[in-house]
Amino acid sequence: MSGSGRLIGVGVGPGDPELVTLKALRTLKSADVVAHFSKKGNESNARAIVAGLLRPDVRELALRYPVTTEIAKHTQTYQAAIRTFYESAVATIAEHLDAGHVVAVICEGDPLFYGSYMHLHVRLSGRYPTEVIAGVTGMSGCWSSVGTPIAQGDDVLTVLPGTLPEDELERRIADTDAAVVMKIGRHLSKIRRALARTGRIDRAIYVERATMPNALVMPLKDKHDDRAPYFALVLVPGWEAPS
Amino acid sequence: MSGSGRLIGVGVGPGDPELVTLKALRTLKSADVVAHFSKKGNESNARAIVAGLLRPDVRELALRYPVTTEIAKHTQTYQAAIRTFYESAVATIAEHLDAGHVVAVICEGDPLFYGSYMHLHVRLSGRYPTEVIAGVTGMSGCWSSVGTPIAQGDDVLTVLPGTLPEDELERRIADTDAAVVMKIGRHLSKIRRALARTGRIDRAIYVERATMPNALVMPLKDKHDDRAPYFALVLVPGWEAPS
Repeated sequence: MSGSGRLIGVGVGPGDPELVTLKALRTLKSADVVAHFSKKGNESNARAIVAGLLRPDVRELALRYPVTTEIAKHTQTYQAAIRTFYESAVATIAEHLDAGHVVAVICEGDPLFYGSYMHLHVRLSGRYPTEVIAGVTGMSGCWSSVGTPIAQGDDVLTVLPGTLPEDELERRIADTDAAVVMKIGRHLSKIRRALARTGRIDRAIYVERATMPNALVMPLKDKHDDRAPYFALVLVPGWEAPS
Repeated sequence: MSGSGRLIGVGVGPGDPELVTLKALRTLKSADVVAHFSKKGNESNARAIVAGLLRPDVRELALRYPVTTEIAKHTQTYQAAIRTFYESAVATIAEHLDAGHVVAVICEGDPLFYGSYMHLHVRLSGRYPTEVIAGVTGMSGCWSSVGTPIAQGDDVLTVLPGTLPEDELERRIADTDAAVVMKIGRHLSKIRRALARTGRIDRAIYVERATMPNALVMPLKDKHDDRAPYFALVLVPGWEAPS
């Protein structure tokens, strides 16, 4: 452990800047460096959430993915590019930590729930003091903005990446009380078929940008196209209110 | 919809008062009535979290479960008692709403994720304006305090109540990448056996009171008794760091 450098993964919640926690806010206000991930040419989602909360003089560190979805994930090209990216990000952050800086890596939602921050955390947590500040997940933001109880009592909740094969989505949706399908993007038609075959499509809710001013919420069966952003979610509530 | 009365379900997070969101804090400061659930003779967990954040002059409404785990859930006695309790809570809250009060029901974790608030919400949301403020879940608090990435990429995460039968726990743990077992209480020995038979026990982490000063975290295999509170969790991380 060197000096007073410290790495903090900071969950900033699903989108509404007011869903930032008091602890995240205090950390943002006191950190020497605020780092954030983004795709080349796009603004960081996490940074957009906290834009109004940053100190004007804070030092920012933009970590830009060299690739995201334009190269298939299982190719060597993708894996080499992404490994090099994380190693270079780790080296840059380590320089700040060695200089005694507190580096806050801001993360949409919760840092250790399907987030990129974990790739930095596992590489740096053995070498420097680290801390993770839990955040409100995107899925909590979704079911709260819809006002739909997701799971209760003995319900099983399954979180499914929409990237899974169609037969696996179908099998798992058939075998759970409640489901959240994440990472929708170009997978919506496949997800729709899996929901239809399991008889769950009438209960499925499609949500984009939950808790943000431009949120879009509708029963999935009322969505008449299959265009969806990567960060859209489909909710299948497990619980039906007593009638 | 009557007058300006409004019902708000407010997630107050997993335990650390700093994991309350800015929106929850603002709502607590402005609500006319702050309501909370508790078991007879116990303090409300949610109230304990926000005790230092309440207005000194706020009106509080304690909703006390007549029964919790001392009567089996599927008996008529339990179901009748709990139904009467929710109906009476709804009637009391409706009086406040009819009087134009803003009633904030504070909820440990996230209101619609295995929470009691949903029983009020479904009974009142058709009659009065309602809002739900998402909170940091107990499970996010757990994996963050441990610093263990729970799920990544194409991982499937399954949330399992520890109350499920042993063979069902075993089957589902064997069929998922990551798991969170909630509601541990007197079910720990059963959960331990299901984890052992699926070869996952060496990765399982036992957590009590995550994010609180008296938190207890240990590998499950190092816990030498089966005593556990209801709100303990067992985490089975899905992701192993690249070596």
